[in-house]
Amino acid sequence: MASSWLNIAADAPFSLANIPFGVISTKRDPTPRPAVAIGDYALDLKAFSSSNGFSEHAEIHQYRSVFAEKTLNAFAALGRPFHRATRAYIQELFKSDTKYAAFLKDNVQFRDAALVPLADVTSHVPLAIGDYTDFYAGKNHAYNVGCLFRGPANALQPNYTHLPVAYHGRASSVVVSGTPIRRPWGQVLRDPKAEPKVPALAPCEKLDLELELGMFICRSNEMGSPVPVNDAEEHIFGYVLMNDWSARDIQAWEYIPLGPFTSKNLGTSISPWVVLADAVPKKAGIKNDNELLPYLKEDLKENVLNIHLEVDIATAGGSKKTVSKTNSSNLLWSWPQMIAHHTITGCNLQTGDLLGSGTISGTESGTEGSLLEITGGGKASIQVGGDERKFLQDGDTLVIRGWAGEDGARIGFGEVSGTIQAALPLF
Amino acid sequence: MASSWLNIAADAPFSLANIPFGVISTKRDPTPRPAVAIGDYALDLKAFSSSNGFSEHAEIHQYRSVFAEKTLNAFAALGRPFHRATRAYIQELFKSDTKYAAFLKDNVQFRDAALVPLADVTSHVPLAIGDYTDFYAGKNHAYNVGCLFRGPANALQPNYTHLPVAYHGRASSVVVSGTPIRRPWGQVLRDPKAEPKVPALAPCEKLDLELELGMFICRSNEMGSPVPVNDAEEHIFGYVLMNDWSARDIQAWEYIPLGPFTSKNLGTSISPWVVLADAVPKKAGIKNDNELLPYLKEDLKENVLNIHLEVDIATAGGSKKTVSKTNSSNLLWSWPQMIAHHTITGCNLQTGDLLGSGTISGTESGTEGSLLEITGGGKASIQVGGDERKFLQDGDTLVIRGWAGEDGARIGFGEVSGTIQAALPLF
Repeated sequence: MASSWLNIAADAPFSLANIPFGVISTKRDPTPRPAVAIGDYALDLKAFSSSNGFSEHAEIHQYRSVFAEKTLNAFAALGRPFHRATRAYIQELFKSDTKYAAFLKDNVQFRDAALVPLADVTSHVPLAIGDYTDFYAGKNHAYNVGCLFRGPANALQPNYTHLPVAYHGRASSVVVSGTPIRRPWGQVLRDPKAEPKVPALAPCEKLDLELELGMFICRSNEMGSPVPVNDAEEHIFGYVLMNDWSARDIQAWEYIPLGPFTSKNLGTSISPWVVLADAVPKKAGIKNDNELLPYLKEDLKENVLNIHLEVDIATAGGSKKTVSKTNSSNLLWSWPQMIAHHTITGCNLQTGDLLGSGTISGTESGTEGSLLEITGGGKASIQVGGDERKFLQDGDTLVIRGWAGEDGARIGFGEVSGTIQAALPLF
Repeated sequence: MASSWLNIAADAPFSLANIPFGVISTKRDPTPRPAVAIGDYALDLKAFSSSNGFSEHAEIHQYRSVFAEKTLNAFAALGRPFHRATRAYIQELFKSDTKYAAFLKDNVQFRDAALVPLADVTSHVPLAIGDYTDFYAGKNHAYNVGCLFRGPANALQPNYTHLPVAYHGRASSVVVSGTPIRRPWGQVLRDPKAEPKVPALAPCEKLDLELELGMFICRSNEMGSPVPVNDAEEHIFGYVLMNDWSARDIQAWEYIPLGPFTSKNLGTSISPWVVLADAVPKKAGIKNDNELLPYLKEDLKENVLNIHLEVDIATAGGSKKTVSKTNSSNLLWSWPQMIAHHTITGCNLQTGDLLGSGTISGTESGTEGSLLEITGGGKASIQVGGDERKFLQDGDTLVIRGWAGEDGARIGFGEVSGTIQAALPLF
């Protein structure tokens, strides 16, 4: 990768090779607006574009009003060739031998107006999310959870390897990294074996994380028009880290027969910077031994993302532990397959829709994407410094990090974090 | 009810007692805008309010810009006292002895500008829907379906009488009455007993209706702040008829363990006119023998809506049959209970969110809200003229009608209709 005139640390997540897009505000200007992250800075695209920063590229300049919006939806809707051109233009801007030195490199005034230290920005949910769908493509997670509930012989349901299982999630409670998560009250069945089954109303006692990736849709499809799997890549804007907070005790009681509901809609956290689809390296996912139906057959064989993922728990007392290290390739289904299946009956995906991968777990100890798996359903404890944990406690901060690529050209996602607040008295 | 200077038929759904709100456009002005329905007319609220039609009520007049929006969200967000005042003002406008004769009754020019024959308007989805949630509160339906799948002893799951079961639905594919519905392709397991279980990709062979009511949220709650059940009524904007089209063969294969997904997101149809919460009479619902948890205990005992509901199937060949007559009181849970449960873990409902009741069925033959129930899972046929039906065929038009009240003061919902189009070749 070329070097930059900007000082970018070798292990910086937002390298010159990356250029992820987000929405920021600052004390000086509290209006949310698009930006990219590079090194320790955000380039304010509203300020940059309105000062004709894109004037060396006629098409980007022509559509520069998308950078004056409060979300990335308008930019996303312009499609992947446009995103590609914008990313390449911004990479050129920051190269040591940039053609566009007049804008930032040699122009202190322009730089002061448009380049903001990341420490000074507030991040926002980057796109207005119309609908949010959560898949269940992490086969090892599905297997691990299936073993806990049904034993190894029936761990995976018969449909699991034939279609990407998913459910519609709650868009309104998707929040950006850093937003505190309130421990929920809910209905729980404390003794599943007692008859009759009488639930209690209580603060959740099994609050868990789910390590996931999120994907934003850029190109919409019309209702009634399924997206062919080999065209689906053009519908992908980019990716974020996701923590799909889960109230396990509430979920166990409510989810039959229509799936998870209040156990999931308490909040879903995402990282603020959308790494563009072009930027992320791919590899082969988990092999599927089934003959797939034609609408799920991809030409591309190296079809899932190759991102290192880590999960830390930090306690209110200051202890900290990395509880999982895994890789995003632990999926049975690729994003294009998820899109193809989501739309096969005619569902219209729209710009800004968010799809979750499902929990990502490896096959070995220390690679699981949820405490449910790590503690065997709460049977075992893990040590976090001097503290024991089966599930999340009040004051715990959960941090997920992710990156691809090598030092000097890292494709980093930054992190998604959230701190658990104590349940409030009800009413 | 008072009489009107406008000629309103005795059995008109949109009586002076009703005044439902919707969003219309016309050939003369294709911009969607708020309106109310009365008799055979729509009162264009954009035209009416911008000509100072609300000037006799300072508060409504002050907020008249909400009637220049393309959806009802801004109006809904103003809250029920505002809706109540607006409805009362419009009722006064149309009374024979109206105080406001200068606006419409005695003003031909004003009338020509603002009063449009319903036959000349195009209706739109009345609110921008952030999230759509479908409940399963129709106990008789849940029981009937449970009997088909599990037999009478285990028909209702243990949680059913303790909490209003629900799942998150798909907001983007909610469409207004009259929108054609394309028969979907999807994964189906034709022989559930064969091993190994290998699905086929095929056009849906068990396309069904679900007779439901829809409810729109007006007042939002903050994430982390559950809505108390006895405050929930203030969060209800109003009601529409809903047909939650369902692909039964696709649903049966996909729904374990996370619930219905592609079998439902092919389309959900709603009637265009939102009947305000104030307008609908109530009665007692199905008795729940359980001691409810405190957050679900309502002070109000007559807590569910009392609406007559009918379902017609009309074939392409011109045959027609009313296949169901039932009542909306066939619910185990009230709308306030659904809101209280939806938010118990902290989910933030937002202005414009749509909640579905779940399928409404009575206990007797001829009162079922789905063909699945009417035909015993497709075992029996019904006659529609000379045609047999187990599930919906291409060209069939499905119409749901609903009304409360008596002739002269009907609280009618109008109808929600949709015609099944043949499946298209895939790709």
